[in-house]
Amino acid sequence: MTAPSDTRFANARLPDGSLADLTVSDGRFSAITPVKEASAVIDAATIDLAGELVVPAFVEGHIHLDTSFYGDAWRPHIPCTDGFDVRERVAFQARSLAAAAPMAERAKNQLELCVGHGSLAMRSHVMVDGSVGLKHIETILAVREKYRALIDIQLVAFPQSGILSSPGTPELLDEALKLGCDLIGGLDPASFDRDVKGHLDVVFGLAHKHGAGVDIHLHDGGLLGLFEVEEIAARTKALGMQGHVAVSHAYGLGDIAADALEKAGEMLADAGVAIMTNAPGNHAFPPVAALRRAGVTVFSGSDNIRDSWWPYGDGDMLNRANMIGYRSGFYEDHELEAAFDVVTDAGARALGLEGYGIAVGAKADFVAMRAEHVPEAVVAVPKARTVYRAGRAVARDGSMLG
Amino acid sequence: MTAPSDTRFANARLPDGSLADLTVSDGRFSAITPVKEASAVIDAATIDLAGELVVPAFVEGHIHLDTSFYGDAWRPHIPCTDGFDVRERVAFQARSLAAAAPMAERAKNQLELCVGHGSLAMRSHVMVDGSVGLKHIETILAVREKYRALIDIQLVAFPQSGILSSPGTPELLDEALKLGCDLIGGLDPASFDRDVKGHLDVVFGLAHKHGAGVDIHLHDGGLLGLFEVEEIAARTKALGMQGHVAVSHAYGLGDIAADALEKAGEMLADAGVAIMTNAPGNHAFPPVAALRRAGVTVFSGSDNIRDSWWPYGDGDMLNRANMIGYRSGFYEDHELEAAFDVVTDAGARALGLEGYGIAVGAKADFVAMRAEHVPEAVVAVPKARTVYRAGRAVARDGSMLG
Repeated sequence: MTAPSDTRFANARLPDGSLADLTVSDGRFSAITPVKEASAVIDAATIDLAGELVVPAFVEGHIHLDTSFYGDAWRPHIPCTDGFDVRERVAFQARSLAAAAPMAERAKNQLELCVGHGSLAMRSHVMVDGSVGLKHIETILAVREKYRALIDIQLVAFPQSGILSSPGTPELLDEALKLGCDLIGGLDPASFDRDVKGHLDVVFGLAHKHGAGVDIHLHDGGLLGLFEVEEIAARTKALGMQGHVAVSHAYGLGDIAADALEKAGEMLADAGVAIMTNAPGNHAFPPVAALRRAGVTVFSGSDNIRDSWWPYGDGDMLNRANMIGYRSGFYEDHELEAAFDVVTDAGARALGLEGYGIAVGAKADFVAMRAEHVPEAVVAVPKARTVYRAGRAVARDGSMLG
Repeated sequence: MTAPSDTRFANARLPDGSLADLTVSDGRFSAITPVKEASAVIDAATIDLAGELVVPAFVEGHIHLDTSFYGDAWRPHIPCTDGFDVRERVAFQARSLAAAAPMAERAKNQLELCVGHGSLAMRSHVMVDGSVGLKHIETILAVREKYRALIDIQLVAFPQSGILSSPGTPELLDEALKLGCDLIGGLDPASFDRDVKGHLDVVFGLAHKHGAGVDIHLHDGGLLGLFEVEEIAARTKALGMQGHVAVSHAYGLGDIAADALEKAGEMLADAGVAIMTNAPGNHAFPPVAALRRAGVTVFSGSDNIRDSWWPYGDGDMLNRANMIGYRSGFYEDHELEAAFDVVTDAGARALGLEGYGIAVGAKADFVAMRAEHVPEAVVAVPKARTVYRAGRAVARDGSMLG
C-alpha cells in the first residue's frame, strides 16, 4: 500500500541487473517491487528512473575535513627539504592553513564535493595537537551539526603530531571524545612516537574509557608495520572491540611475504579489525583481494584532497573504486564488483552504519546513474548522477540542488 | 589585421596563466595577443572563452581502434586458464570479435570517445596476422579516411600473433605498409617469437624499405626487456632513424637497477627512441621523471579500451596525465606539468606532428576548459571541455557537436 506521503521511483535497475519499482516512506525503502520490463509512468508524483542503475550511496571512509584547500586558492605542493618528514610537513601545513579561507568554509566545499559525487556517510580524521588544541575539532563538530540532514559524519580525534611526542595530547584526545568525536586515532606508534606500547596504551585506554572506536594511521612498512598491526589486533580482541577498530593505510601489508600476509589476514578477520586503503599511486598497499578472501573488511576513502600533503583527490568514491580495481589488477566482473563493494557495503560495515543498502527497511540514501550494471559503472565512472538522501534528490551531476 | 574569414577567440587563459586573444585564419593561429585583463566582448563573431584554460589538443599515442567493444555490448573479462598467455588471449579475442558489432562502427565509437575528450591526433596499432590477414588494416584505413577532417591518425601494422611464429606475417606487414600504414610494429621479440635478431631484422628491414617508422610492443621485463631495448636503439642509430622509433610499454625499464636505468636513458636519448607508457595500474613501468631527465621523449596512450585484454580505459588523455602523475608520485606543480607534457608536447614529438601547440602558425587544434592552470587541470580532470579542430568547435563535454 502506498501512503500519500510516499515517494515512488519507477524503473530502477538494481545492482543485479533486474528492474524494480522502489517506494520510499519516511526516508526509508518501504517496498521494492520487481518489474518485468520498464513501465510507462502515468503518475505525476512518481519519479521515473528510466532504467538507471540504483546503488547505495557511497561510503567515504577516510578524509580530512579540516585541512583541504579544495575550493580555496591553489597552493603548490612543496617537498620536504631532505626526504619525507611528518614534522616538517605539519609545519608546512600550519603555514598554509594560516593563509587559507576559514576552516568551516573549506570543510563545506569538501563536503559538497563528496555529496555531489554520491557519498552520504563519511569518516573524517580531524587534527588534535598541542599547537591547534581542540580548535579543528570544535569547528568540524559544528560543521557536522549543520550538515546532519545531508550526510552522516563520524569524527576521529587524530593526533597529527603524535601522542607521546606532543605534550598534552592525551588530555586533548580525552577532551575531544567528550566533545563528541566518535573514534580516537593514532599515528605510526613506532616510527613517529618511537613507543608502540606507550602509544597504543593511550589510544586503547581512551577508547575503552569512552566506548569509542579506533582508527589508526599506520604508514610503517614491512615487518615493522605488521608488528604494529598484530599489537592492534591483540588489543582489539582483549577489549572485545571487534568491529570497532580500523587501521588506515597499513602499507606494511603490501610488502610482506605471501605466507605472512595470509596469517595477518586470518588474524585481522578474527580480531574484527578493518583495513582502509585509498589505493595509493606509487606505494605498496594492502592486497585487497587477498584480505577480502581472508574475511577482512577492506574499505576506502579519498584521504587528503588538495592539501599540504598532496594535490590529488576528487571526492568521488566511484572513481576510487575504479582506482582500487586498476591498482589491484581487477579485470573480471566479480573483481570489479569487489572494488565497488569496498566503497559501499564494506565501508558501511567498517563504519557500523545502520540501515545501509538497497533493501526494504534501509535508509533511502542512493545514487542513480546511467550504467548497465556495477562492473560497467566501475570502469566508466559516469559523472552524470543523481544523489538521493532519504528519498529526496540532493545533488545532480556533481552539483548540490536547491 | 583580421580578415573577414578569421575567427577571434577572446579571453583565453594560456598554460602560463596569462590571458590572450587568439586569432585563427585558415585553421591555424595567425595571432596571439596578450591582454591585461578579461575584456568585454563586443563583436558577435568573436567567441568569448571567458578565461578558460586553452591547451593544445591531446595526443593519443597508443590505442587499438580495431579491437575495442566500447559502445557495443558488455563483454565480461575472462582470465587465461593457466597464467597469462598471449596466444590464448588472441584466440579469446577472435571469438569475442566474431560476435561483436562491425569493426568500423566500433572504431567510430572509440574515435568519438577520444575526440570528445580532446584528442585530435592519434597513433593506433592495428592487428595483422595469418588469421585476419589485412582485413583489420583495410577497415581502419577506411575509417581514417572518413575521419580525416576531424582527427589525424597514424596507423601501425601490428603483428599481434608474432612475426616469425605466424607464417606469412612478414609479407602481410609489407603489404600493410604499401596500403598506407605509417609504421611497422612488433611484439616481444624474445618472449613471443623467441628470436630477437630474427624479429628485429624483419621489423627494421621493412621500415627501411618503406621509409616507415617503428613502434614495438615490448612487455618483456628486467634485463631481458633492457637487452631488447638496447638492440632496438642500436638499429635505430645504425639506420639513421632517430626520432622515428618508439618502444611501447617497455616494462623492463621499470624494474632494473637505478644505474642500469641511467645508462638506458642516455642510450635512448642518444638514439632518439621514444618510450610509450600508459602508467599501468598493477605493474612496474618506465620511470617517467628519470627518463625525461635523461632527455628521452616519453609519451602516452589509452592502450586497450574495453576489449578482450582488460575492461578499463576512457579515452581521456587528460585523465591519463592524472594517472601518470598519480602513479609516478608527481605532487609539485612542475611535476604535474611534466605529466601534462607527456600527453601533449612530448606526444607530438613522438608522433612527429607538424604545427602542434598554441603558437602563431600552429594548427588551431585546442581544448578549452575551466581550470586556473595546467597543474589544476591535471588533478581536477574537468570533464566539461570544448574541443576545437582547426578553430571550429567539434565536441563539448564529451559529446560530438553537429
